[in-house]
Amino acid sequence: MTVATAGEFGLISRVTARLGAESPYVLLGPGDDAALVATPDRRVVASTDVLVEGRHFRRDWSSARDIGHRAAAANLADIAAMGGRPTALLVALCAPANLQISWAEELADGLAAEAAKTGAVVVGGDTSASPTLTIAVTALGDLEGREPVVRTGAQPGDIVAVAGRIGHAAAGYTILSRGFRSPKLLVEAFRRPEVPYHLGPLAARLGATSMIDISDGLLADLGHIATASDVGIDVRRNAFTVPEQMRDAATALGVDPYGWILAGGDDHALAATFPADTELSAEWLVVGSVLPASPFTAGDGVTVDGRRYTGGAPGWDHFR
Amino acid sequence: MTVATAGEFGLISRVTARLGAESPYVLLGPGDDAALVATPDRRVVASTDVLVEGRHFRRDWSSARDIGHRAAAANLADIAAMGGRPTALLVALCAPANLQISWAEELADGLAAEAAKTGAVVVGGDTSASPTLTIAVTALGDLEGREPVVRTGAQPGDIVAVAGRIGHAAAGYTILSRGFRSPKLLVEAFRRPEVPYHLGPLAARLGATSMIDISDGLLADLGHIATASDVGIDVRRNAFTVPEQMRDAATALGVDPYGWILAGGDDHALAATFPADTELSAEWLVVGSVLPASPFTAGDGVTVDGRRYTGGAPGWDHFR
Repeated sequence: MTVATAGEFGLISRVTARLGAESPYVLLGPGDDAALVATPDRRVVASTDVLVEGRHFRRDWSSARDIGHRAAAANLADIAAMGGRPTALLVALCAPANLQISWAEELADGLAAEAAKTGAVVVGGDTSASPTLTIAVTALGDLEGREPVVRTGAQPGDIVAVAGRIGHAAAGYTILSRGFRSPKLLVEAFRRPEVPYHLGPLAARLGATSMIDISDGLLADLGHIATASDVGIDVRRNAFTVPEQMRDAATALGVDPYGWILAGGDDHALAATFPADTELSAEWLVVGSVLPASPFTAGDGVTVDGRRYTGGAPGWDHFR
Repeated sequence: MTVATAGEFGLISRVTARLGAESPYVLLGPGDDAALVATPDRRVVASTDVLVEGRHFRRDWSSARDIGHRAAAANLADIAAMGGRPTALLVALCAPANLQISWAEELADGLAAEAAKTGAVVVGGDTSASPTLTIAVTALGDLEGREPVVRTGAQPGDIVAVAGRIGHAAAGYTILSRGFRSPKLLVEAFRRPEVPYHLGPLAARLGATSMIDISDGLLADLGHIATASDVGIDVRRNAFTVPEQMRDAATALGVDPYGWILAGGDDHALAATFPADTELSAEWLVVGSVLPASPFTAGDGVTVDGRRYTGGAPGWDHFR
């Protein structure tokens, strides 16, 4: 059955039926003009990300469930990158009239399953017909009384650390775009990011001075921190060990794997700065340091081993 | 300059520059991974609505500013219909590469101006290239300590009242679709809804037992209340006075103006049920009454003068 056959209300009821999860944060879920979500510390963290077919996903590369996971992860990671705990998602689905209802149901399953990793649930949404399959997600979150970890707080002398996969999604994207389907580790990393959500609140407790999730690429996203904090950031290339499967794939494809690591986005790993004496758990990899802003610092203030990085893919700019 | 020329970050900075409003609710606005919004009563009302070109708006019928007003109003009205006060908007804009930056800037002006009517401000968003111009908005709101007014609370014996324009937007839509541009009152009503936002919280204080904003059409939206509350609702046709310009337009177009009033959507007026002895201000028009659910009640439980209404446009179902 297509969404056109089911109609808007049929689609909504079919999709809502897949979102059965309960949460102490949800005071009123789908089915009314708006949802009502608990915000125990009198503040709510909120972020919106939109995924467009052909731009952020392809139905021949990823299942509906994969795309649901990715759409949720892109938003939930933004909450984690503020040091917040995700509580709720709202989802707007724009779908071609010939989309199968089962596809929308599996998308909902993926959204709900990814949200469940963080304790969040889907509390509302909207649907419309559209020639372009589009999924806009808003995530809400709770800071549990902590201050948000923003992009403006990095200080010279801080260390720069990352947690989560780096370069995997970009490698998977390259592999898929060349027509291959393996290695599975990298292809699956593109299909479903594995985001260390719990480390966002933990980083806040450890005193992270700034944090961001890596969606545009490590250097591009550290550039956002450097610009916002008015500092320089230097990354050490040899801080990264290229995983064997990534090295083999890079060799086979004739590309530099550090392009994926330094400039590839969409893994939604966390990058944060901490005071130099912070004791980080093994989940964090220290990859560089924060420097004073300098007129000699290239571009957005981010260098690799002291020099501007010119290789690899640039940060992904959706309009170019 | 097009959005493709400006790039994603150029577009974001140009649009963000138009959203200068401040609000005591906004603890952290655009520019980080997420926004931070105050929720004084430890709960947040949240709703998402998406507008798709060719489905919800046409660029040859409405200016960018008009479309911004309508996109914001559709969401802000959902907050008001819960009895809430809107505090913040998040906006995802999917734009064709050849869209002029000035169009996006004027859209932002419209969004911000409509939000300002309620005290809300735009706190964040996202952009992407897309073949289909799409605007997804999420509104957040504050119940100021009150209980939400939901769809499930209508009781037999309650009165049904509406506040705001009814049928105007549908009339304007019909006029525009027939190639006309006047009367201006109706065409402008389609372009920019005039929503009595302040009456949402006031209705909650007056003890409204249920409330909804009229987006699908009066009878369709009262049907949502009747279904959720398990009651019948009877509407009196002669409760409505057809405005002179609407009567003239209907005569000229050869249509029944009550089709617009009873079945036309997109005005985002408020419809609510109240205990029969409630003293309503002159802004409310009593149009019907709540009845016990009955196996003889037609369809979704809503009748007009005791009979099922078969004329006029059906409630707008975006997938049909």
